[in-house]
Order: sequence, then structure tokens, then C-alpha cells
Amino acid sequence: MHSNRLAQQIQFVLEIDRLKQILRQTLLTDGSRRENSAEHSWHIAIMAIVLAEYAPEGTDLLQAIQMLLIHDLVEIDAGDTFCYDVQSNHSKVEREQAAAERLFGLLPLDQGAALRALWDEFEAQTTPTARFAAALDRIQPVLHNQQTQGGTWQQHGITRDRVMQRVAPVQFGAPDLWAFIQTIIDDSVAAGYLAR
Amino acid sequence: MHSNRLAQQIQFVLEIDRLKQILRQTLLTDGSRRENSAEHSWHIAIMAIVLAEYAPEGTDLLQAIQMLLIHDLVEIDAGDTFCYDVQSNHSKVEREQAAAERLFGLLPLDQGAALRALWDEFEAQTTPTARFAAALDRIQPVLHNQQTQGGTWQQHGITRDRVMQRVAPVQFGAPDLWAFIQTIIDDSVAAGYLAR
Repeated sequence: MHSNRLAQQIQFVLEIDRLKQILRQTLLTDGSRRENSAEHSWHIAIMAIVLAEYAPEGTDLLQAIQMLLIHDLVEIDAGDTFCYDVQSNHSKVEREQAAAERLFGLLPLDQGAALRALWDEFEAQTTPTARFAAALDRIQPVLHNQQTQGGTWQQHGITRDRVMQRVAPVQFGAPDLWAFIQTIIDDSVAAGYLAR
Repeated sequence: MHSNRLAQQIQFVLEIDRLKQILRQTLLTDGSRRENSAEHSWHIAIMAIVLAEYAPEGTDLLQAIQMLLIHDLVEIDAGDTFCYDVQSNHSKVEREQAAAERLFGLLPLDQGAALRALWDEFEAQTTPTARFAAALDRIQPVLHNQQTQGGTWQQHGITRDRVMQRVAPVQFGAPDLWAFIQTIIDDSVAAGYLAR
């Protein structure tokens, strides 16, 4: 028989399949349906590869990709909290901490601790790697909202100032993409996809 | 305005969103729906992280993860070819080569060439990294089929010998997981999920 260690690892692999059923507010670029958090994580992990040259000095690409792949796992227990939902965001930290405890706790101790540390690093936003990862996580929905003629912004009556607040971390996490993301937002306002 | 280089990179990022709409035969572990190739790629990329200790000597984890994230992109043009569909597999190579040409061709030259080389390496299966990546790609559907009481195996009348042939690359790509995957298959036969 295989070891207890491998059994724990496989248990984790099976458990995380549930992230494929957690729906985000963001629509696919063709507007056909909402995006789930697993495919979203895949998308921004590839963005890390393709946009690596815009990462701040000191960014570790392997760590950034791993971070992006696991950053939403806590939603399996805590659900996806819409970034513009003030009420739900009050309880978000607590719910997600408990989820991290349980999910990374499925793994062998050393491995669970390592992935938990990566997740904590992403949450804390104090390293270049975490800041770069967060910047990509903020940029992707803006691209999707532009592609869907305002998608989620329209549905929820989101205004330009709230989006600007939301993408603010791009300034530090991917400074070379800051002008670009501002252009996308300005273009979206001009096109009537985003309210002033 | 932002550079032409960035415009090409963003074009690629937007284009690959379509992988979220390519359905595989595999079901989610709860059997509720078919899995798409984007979320599948995410899943096996995390498997690479969690199961890295079983990779053969000489495996480069960053390369393996990148390979797994991009290995199915060609399906955007070529579609997902069911591994047990003999007919479609005849034309698969040609269709996927053309897709790789177009998709990686969206990127700046240097970057497109680098990702194309990674994809070629995965297809060629001559390096430890590519073999490890392929092993994970073969293991994941077996886990899903076991979880769904035979899922795709039952639907298509797949027998044990065909699954054994399909997972054969695990012997070289993740030798330490070979006994494990055989156990899963034997258990599935014993449970009546997989025909002898």
C-alpha cells in the first residue's frame, strides 16, 4: 500500500476539485457565463508567465505562480466574496482564515505549512512577489469587464472611482502596467461601459 | 500609449480565455458536469506542486508547472480529442501543430518561441520534466473516474487494459506513483467501476 503521506496529498488533490464550482462575478470574455475560481486561477497564473517582465525587482516567478494557483482555494469553504460587496467583506478575513486552516491542514504537516505560508504572504502583500500576484488578480477582471461591454460593472452599477480604488495595488505590484490599466479604464468610461 | 509588445501579450491573454469553454470527457469529482480544459490545467499544475517529491531526478518544477498550464492551449483551435477515440487521434498531431503555430504566434517573437519550445518539449516526452508533467496529466482523470464510480469509463465502455495503456507513462514520469495508480485501477475494477 501507499504511504499515509501520499494518501493525505491525494485527499487534498481531490478536495480542491470543488474550486471549479465556486462562481465569481466576472463573466468569460464572450459574456456566455460566469467564471469559476479554478479557471480564473489558471488564467492569472499564465498571465504571470506572459507578463513576468513587468514584475517588480525581487519577484520570484515560481512563487508567484504557486501563489496565484492556490490564492483562491479558501473560497471552497468561504465562498467568493464580491470585491464591491462591503457587507460580506467585513467577515471575509475570518471566514478565509478558518478555510485555510482546514484546507492546508489536509496536507502533510511540512507541505501544508509551506502552502499556508505562501497564502499568508499573498494576503499580507508585503513582498514584491505577493504584490505582483495581486496586481494580476486585479488586472484580469478589468480586462474581462472591458471585453463584455462593462459586464459586472454594469450589473452592479460600479463607478470609475471604485474600480480605480480596486486596481490601486497595480501601482506597486506591476508599476509598468499602471499606465496601461488606466487606459483600459478610461477607454471603458469613454465607451459607456463604466459609469463616471 | 502602451507598446506593441504589451498589446500582443494582452491579445494572447484574452484569446486563451476560450480554453474555459473546451469541454473534456472527464467529469468533476462529484459527477455534476464535464470538466473544461482550463480548470483541468489548473488542477494538474497544483498536483505538480503537491506531488513534486515524486518527480524524476532532473525535473524542473517551474518548467513543469508552466508546461501543464499551457499544454492544452492548442485545444482552443483543435478541440479536445478524447484519448480513447482512435479515429480523431489520427488527425490530432496535425491539428494541434497548426493551433500551436497560431496561438503562440500571437505573442512577441521571443516569448512565443519560448512557450512553443515548452509545448514541443511536453509533446516530445524526452525530458524528465515533460515526463513528470505527462504523468500528472494521466493520473488526474483516473482519480476523477474512480470518484465518479467509473464516470467516463462507464460511459464509453473502456476496459482495464486500455486504461493501463493510457497510464503507462506514469512508470517513467512518476515511478514512485506507479504502484499507487495501479492500486486505484485495481480497486476500480474490484468495485465494478472499470470493466476487466
